[in-house]
Amino acid sequence: MYGMIATWRMALEGIEKGAQVLKENGNVQDALEVAVCDVEDFEYYKSVGYGGLPNREEEVELDASFMDGDTLAFGAVGAVKDFANPVRIARSLMQYDANNFLVGNGAEKYASSHGFERKNMLTERAKIHYENRLKEMNDELKPYSGHDTVGMVALDQDGHMASATSTSGLFMKHPGRLGDSPVCGSGFYVDSFVGGASATGLGEDVMKGCVSYEIVRCMKDGMHPQEACEKVVHQFDEELKRRRGKAGDMSLIAMNNQGEWGCATNIDGFSFVVATQTCQPTVYLAYREENGKMRFAEADQAWMENYMQTRTAPLVRK
Amino acid sequence: MYGMIATWRMALEGIEKGAQVLKENGNVQDALEVAVCDVEDFEYYKSVGYGGLPNREEEVELDASFMDGDTLAFGAVGAVKDFANPVRIARSLMQYDANNFLVGNGAEKYASSHGFERKNMLTERAKIHYENRLKEMNDELKPYSGHDTVGMVALDQDGHMASATSTSGLFMKHPGRLGDSPVCGSGFYVDSFVGGASATGLGEDVMKGCVSYEIVRCMKDGMHPQEACEKVVHQFDEELKRRRGKAGDMSLIAMNNQGEWGCATNIDGFSFVVATQTCQPTVYLAYREENGKMRFAEADQAWMENYMQTRTAPLVRK
Repeated sequence: MYGMIATWRMALEGIEKGAQVLKENGNVQDALEVAVCDVEDFEYYKSVGYGGLPNREEEVELDASFMDGDTLAFGAVGAVKDFANPVRIARSLMQYDANNFLVGNGAEKYASSHGFERKNMLTERAKIHYENRLKEMNDELKPYSGHDTVGMVALDQDGHMASATSTSGLFMKHPGRLGDSPVCGSGFYVDSFVGGASATGLGEDVMKGCVSYEIVRCMKDGMHPQEACEKVVHQFDEELKRRRGKAGDMSLIAMNNQGEWGCATNIDGFSFVVATQTCQPTVYLAYREENGKMRFAEADQAWMENYMQTRTAPLVRK
Repeated sequence: MYGMIATWRMALEGIEKGAQVLKENGNVQDALEVAVCDVEDFEYYKSVGYGGLPNREEEVELDASFMDGDTLAFGAVGAVKDFANPVRIARSLMQYDANNFLVGNGAEKYASSHGFERKNMLTERAKIHYENRLKEMNDELKPYSGHDTVGMVALDQDGHMASATSTSGLFMKHPGRLGDSPVCGSGFYVDSFVGGASATGLGEDVMKGCVSYEIVRCMKDGMHPQEACEKVVHQFDEELKRRRGKAGDMSLIAMNNQGEWGCATNIDGFSFVVATQTCQPTVYLAYREENGKMRFAEADQAWMENYMQTRTAPLVRK
């Protein structure tokens, strides 16, 4: 068995390429790198890589991670500017026994001295979004609720598992802000003896519950990925509401080492992508039922067309 | 009941001050801030705050965190330079719904614009350590094994709990390197309905297991803090050795919301400090027995004198 699961519709083209790598008996890490880079490179996805929306000082700061489920090694970068594919830098950092998590200038120094591709990641389109947002906000700089991280978990035919994430984080965030995406246990966690999970949503709330780690732990206790996702997301959402009066957006995907998968969310409109040996790459829409239970439906042609149309529609300066 | 527990002997003077705040019915967060700042300010402790050892470019980069066990809110800074008390910046970041975890230049901008005290944190003594180490390394820059984070958990008389950490991280680390200290679930975790835990050791390995979160989770399942610490540290140490052939240093302290405490380590020579309503501030030494079980002994007068003598002994340039 092989398989991949990823947050959001935007992962589809990447997952198609990654699943092909797995089908041809390729390595799980190569499949993930191909898949995440594809999302990073597509300029119309405004929350990951090139075209990602900037922080409040109009700088695109990127976070990414990579984790090896065999050794629990991980690499992560945070608040990195001007590199084409942060997920590649994160993967490269996995090889060391220390200095696996690098941020800001230090991460950029590492990437530069290790030959990673430089690129100005701020697109004209992202600048228009920024300027329009500035006008809407009437000088009150608040982080915007856009935070669509791509998070993936994959299993190859040899039973190796890995995970990867990439994001430009909160639109209008404070410079240097890290979300959950580069944080082991929160934005991602994977153990080849069990399975993996990855998150998208308000990182600050995801981190309060180490949500990816907790889902993997529940799978280790014997739960199906779907049961684990539903239980953890529902309970933690309730917990946050009880203690704080509210809970940030939180959507989790998971896959175990049999290629079985799961997803849970506390929002409307979450989409995700799954591909396995027995299932072509498919976009699912997640609907919340009672008590955190989820129902999924394949995205239809109309939804798919509307998705790409709204993403690529001309943008007008206000 | 009130109580505080902290990693390493270096926390003693801080814990004495913090415990006094708790004794006088003070707030748990105020007690922690007083205690951690005391450690940060003492120039002879070479792994926390002023006098902390620099990274491989001879810059002192500091990490710190603060977490509120009532709301699960946390604040954290990473790779911050030239501020006197990073733990104060971390505490201040807890108040927001987003942008709680800031790193590098972005964190410094926040601290600067919010009036936190600037200070050059590189002491003459730290420079001598750096220069001596450079000579010993024969130009091979490797992170040194020194990584004595101060991590604390506290409980006040009203039942509120909180945690805080502060560290200069690995001596000779790569610029921008984050360890576990600013990472929720790894370097710290606290829930006032249960208890809290905090870590010191090789952050890169602590993060692979979300060790502080896992200890709190075990306490939530009903375990005594000592049982939780022993189980989690022992199992994860074994797991890392099985998968990676080795496990980094890892020492954890914990306290539950009854003021009961625990500690476990996979190294020799770990010391920690406890103070509760029924126990004066005391330095304990931890000894490993079979199967991860721990035995503790109060540090005697000779040990205490030797400790301070070695810390403050004149340092000679090689």
